[in-house]
Amino acid sequence: MGYMRQSKLFSKTRKEAPADEIAKNAELLIRGGFIYKEMAGVYTLLPLGLRVINKIEQIVRDEMNMVGGMEMRTSIIQAKEVWEKTNRWDDEIVDNWFKTKLKNGGEVGLSFTNEEAHSNILKQYVNSYKDLPVYVYDFKNIFRNETRSKSGILRGREFYWKALYSFSKSETEHNEFYEKAKIAYKNVFQKVGIGHLTYMTFASGGTFSKFSHEFQTLTSAGEDTIYVDEATSVAVNQEVYTDEVLKDLGLEKEKLVERKAIEVGNIFSLGTKFSAPFDLKFKDENNKENLVVMGSYGIGLTRLMGTVVEVLSDDKGIIWPESIAPFKIQLLSLGESENVTKEANKVYGALLEASIEVIFDDRNGMSVGEKFADSDLLGMPYRAVVSERSIKEGGIELKKRTEEKGSIVSLDELIKTLK
Amino acid sequence: MGYMRQSKLFSKTRKEAPADEIAKNAELLIRGGFIYKEMAGVYTLLPLGLRVINKIEQIVRDEMNMVGGMEMRTSIIQAKEVWEKTNRWDDEIVDNWFKTKLKNGGEVGLSFTNEEAHSNILKQYVNSYKDLPVYVYDFKNIFRNETRSKSGILRGREFYWKALYSFSKSETEHNEFYEKAKIAYKNVFQKVGIGHLTYMTFASGGTFSKFSHEFQTLTSAGEDTIYVDEATSVAVNQEVYTDEVLKDLGLEKEKLVERKAIEVGNIFSLGTKFSAPFDLKFKDENNKENLVVMGSYGIGLTRLMGTVVEVLSDDKGIIWPESIAPFKIQLLSLGESENVTKEANKVYGALLEASIEVIFDDRNGMSVGEKFADSDLLGMPYRAVVSERSIKEGGIELKKRTEEKGSIVSLDELIKTLK
Repeated sequence: MGYMRQSKLFSKTRKEAPADEIAKNAELLIRGGFIYKEMAGVYTLLPLGLRVINKIEQIVRDEMNMVGGMEMRTSIIQAKEVWEKTNRWDDEIVDNWFKTKLKNGGEVGLSFTNEEAHSNILKQYVNSYKDLPVYVYDFKNIFRNETRSKSGILRGREFYWKALYSFSKSETEHNEFYEKAKIAYKNVFQKVGIGHLTYMTFASGGTFSKFSHEFQTLTSAGEDTIYVDEATSVAVNQEVYTDEVLKDLGLEKEKLVERKAIEVGNIFSLGTKFSAPFDLKFKDENNKENLVVMGSYGIGLTRLMGTVVEVLSDDKGIIWPESIAPFKIQLLSLGESENVTKEANKVYGALLEASIEVIFDDRNGMSVGEKFADSDLLGMPYRAVVSERSIKEGGIELKKRTEEKGSIVSLDELIKTLK
Repeated sequence: MGYMRQSKLFSKTRKEAPADEIAKNAELLIRGGFIYKEMAGVYTLLPLGLRVINKIEQIVRDEMNMVGGMEMRTSIIQAKEVWEKTNRWDDEIVDNWFKTKLKNGGEVGLSFTNEEAHSNILKQYVNSYKDLPVYVYDFKNIFRNETRSKSGILRGREFYWKALYSFSKSETEHNEFYEKAKIAYKNVFQKVGIGHLTYMTFASGGTFSKFSHEFQTLTSAGEDTIYVDEATSVAVNQEVYTDEVLKDLGLEKEKLVERKAIEVGNIFSLGTKFSAPFDLKFKDENNKENLVVMGSYGIGLTRLMGTVVEVLSDDKGIIWPESIAPFKIQLLSLGESENVTKEANKVYGALLEASIEVIFDDRNGMSVGEKFADSDLLGMPYRAVVSERSIKEGGIELKKRTEEKGSIVSLDELIKTLK
């Protein structure tokens, strides 16, 4: 459905967000009717917000498929025994579980991440070197029992993410994929419109690798502190910001700038950390058993939507990049004369025919100021206005969300510009 | 991704399902690698199963959009206060809640249905008769704490469903939509390939309507008993099978046949049962406040997939209808000679170019018998075989899953048949 009449959209813009909502991302998204706050850290995606998420999802999916990813959908309910294998069932070890009880006895958990689920499933299917490498991902709701949740949809108790896990025969095979994943991740952030603000950032690794790589988007709303070398586009997370690491990476302290940022994605070499407890092995060409080498690659989709709102908005509202805007253009009819209504409907019909995604503000009983304010808040990339004046001037007033002033175009020109 | 090499698919067919899995649907789906059993009533959708669900989802979405439905995605975590309004928080009233605790105090639940969530959200947005009617739906995972779960994916503890709720100004407006929904539902079951076995069935209503309507698919695996009038395609659920009801519906007892069936969908007039506790009112043209009239319309997508498997399979495996098959055709290369490999890859390439969804069994080291058995188990609508024999006979052996014997066709004929 690439089109919508706003008069039929039940979600309405609001002047104010809930009083307890202090994060700009959630405030704008709630006021625009993109999301509904169920409670702190838990949001419903209203029709407009779901459209944004669906577009982000397709961008991520395309990139994951491009590197050979295969999509599945793991269950949210997780068995205790599976997580006991890695010692992550224990609340002393993992402090943000949501757990619940089966009626006929026994505790289960809600996915807070997916390494265990994937490893456990792959254990059933991987036996030989012929079965590897495999790259498996899913989109799913993830649950984390955060004590406080005050960053809007940047840090949810329930959020929507993509996680891919790679299962390779060797470090070498793993590293090849890991490099491909870096490119795929850069593509994602480029495509959703925040590539210019997003730095691949060295962060702490683990037993099996010196570093992991985070993708950090600069914003004062960020919870992370990073040190950016703007010349080389390299950044280092505060957690590994030591003289030794800087030397290691060939970075000079005086050239680095301290910035606040939000982690929109991360990739991590896991080595055999998870394959060992699951005894996830394969037989090589010589019939010798080896542990699978794993990597993890995560992106929070709702967080990504929130980040876009944080970094691409102005004091009037959201500014969606074309690639993830709910609709490419918002058409406004100003005035309720037969003339305007007829002309606006004609333009709407022409946009539909041309398969241009359009939301049509056909609502009656609203002032020009209200319609313009709503339009800026909602933030479609283009705005087309049909009014008595625009008709008198020979067409439709077209302007980009990022422009101050529009210009009059004919219907043909409108379609041509947007196609 | 309309294509897949089976050598790259990590899920493999299995000779046996888990010993505790007694339902045919889950047995075949597990053996085929469509689903993975996490625990009783909880399944992961493996790549092939996810493809089926995605196709069912698009069929359902199209039908919901056709009747004016608007898609959103409500959270899984649900606030206690919302459900207390309808008195459905209490475990004495609803016996299949999954509940969990927030770390900073307070209980929350996991959605077991969606009336409350939708009503609560709409309460924020509906004020005037101009805001109605609205029809809102979502696809989401639903959680029900079933004591026993022995019907495979027909009755899950976690399952994937679509629910639409209608919000209307009057009984009349509600009834008009309700009739449209009946047609949309019939279309869904027709399109997914079980229309001929699915009966609209009168079932118990509630305070606000004499009957609800279930869509019941005949199968011995069904948990429901219905009485079918085959001549008129009308059915009555056992729960309302009384002389009075039969008289009411103009049915004659002696013409009805008792059958086992599974409920694949249901539609229900809710009246003001939910709008009253949420004080979900609108002002009419005379500025008078009225309660919104609601209806609910549910379909379990994973259950629907399971039902298709129950009713459309034979002793060799699954028989997917074209509309929801993971792929339209399975291409098999039999033999590993250069000649066969080259020819099979050529056919694969031609199918890709023609945008025909294909899974290519390019695996080496398997016998002809194993490949045929896997192919029957997986159940794609068409099977194309490239072998030394088929090449000698001048092409590709093509057969439908439902046919015993295939015939030799040229590559051009193959594409033409499938296009």
